[in-house]
Amino acid sequence: MKKIYFITGNKGKVIEAKNKFSEIGIEVIQKNFGYPEIQTNSLEEVAIYGVKHIQNHFDKPFILEDAGLFIEQLNGFPGVYSAFVFYSIGCKGVLKLMENSKNRKATFRSVFAYGEQNKKQKIFVGESNGIITQKEKGNNGFGYDPIFIPNSETRTFAEMETGEKNIFSHRGKSLEKLIDFFKIQ
Amino acid sequence: MKKIYFITGNKGKVIEAKNKFSEIGIEVIQKNFGYPEIQTNSLEEVAIYGVKHIQNHFDKPFILEDAGLFIEQLNGFPGVYSAFVFYSIGCKGVLKLMENSKNRKATFRSVFAYGEQNKKQKIFVGESNGIITQKEKGNNGFGYDPIFIPNSETRTFAEMETGEKNIFSHRGKSLEKLIDFFKIQ
Repeated sequence: MKKIYFITGNKGKVIEAKNKFSEIGIEVIQKNFGYPEIQTNSLEEVAIYGVKHIQNHFDKPFILEDAGLFIEQLNGFPGVYSAFVFYSIGCKGVLKLMENSKNRKATFRSVFAYGEQNKKQKIFVGESNGIITQKEKGNNGFGYDPIFIPNSETRTFAEMETGEKNIFSHRGKSLEKLIDFFKIQ
Repeated sequence: MKKIYFITGNKGKVIEAKNKFSEIGIEVIQKNFGYPEIQTNSLEEVAIYGVKHIQNHFDKPFILEDAGLFIEQLNGFPGVYSAFVFYSIGCKGVLKLMENSKNRKATFRSVFAYGEQNKKQKIFVGESNGIITQKEKGNNGFGYDPIFIPNSETRTFAEMETGEKNIFSHRGKSLEKLIDFFKIQ
């Protein structure tokens, strides 16, 4: 069975990818491998920089993923720094910043990157547009899921089952593109 | 005259350093040289990573500086990402997050790093402890200066002249340590 390494410390992401990859006969193996994430406003740049770094130190094919929540009214905040912002001020902080804001548009973005030694990096982007709620709702998922309602829905990501969320989530979409790429390899 | 290169796009920082270095007979030359800034909670790590990168591409002695505002009540936010947070939600956003907070303690930190090919990197840290104001005050300085009052003062950094601010500012202190280091070289 063909193998691919998922460079991440997040087991949840690995399980999600494992299921999808098994459908096309590829085994996903989690690998913790610290790589530098640069400060930039672009998830793509973070991913490409990470892949280039790993390519110099690891001789197997691998994938990594980076994601962020971009809120229009806050000029893209928390964006690329979503994880840091979540662990410092949390959903409560973001809701506070959005108090009295009429424009509640936000986009969740996910970028998968694929790397292999001496090959050009590949990038797969998924987006989910929606709005920021007035308060937290739901207990599923993680991060900003309780305050994000995707368009054409009335529930937050945290009020959905994982499988349901992934149908139209940012990460579901980028993973789908990644899988399509592997199908034609 | 001995020369040192200051890797930065910020002319204000260069002028500040130029004055201090001229006192010990060293000329400071500004150099724009993009280097990767990694995502971490530590300014020191950002600086060391940057120096190592530049050492591989530049054969002259150089310095760089990174700074951030760490607010206790917000678990260190905006910290290492102070610049990004400033350009997205600004002082107004930070004040909003601090509404009704009794604990207004904050620390400005500055890290100067010195690098030279084939030599170990050196780090010089300066800190200024103080509080976050209830509203913006003053027009001098930049960034979070209008909302930070250092201990033993009643005015924000933005209400002081540059020379006065630098006596007890974070950057003034780290620069002082850097100068001391050069004195004994």
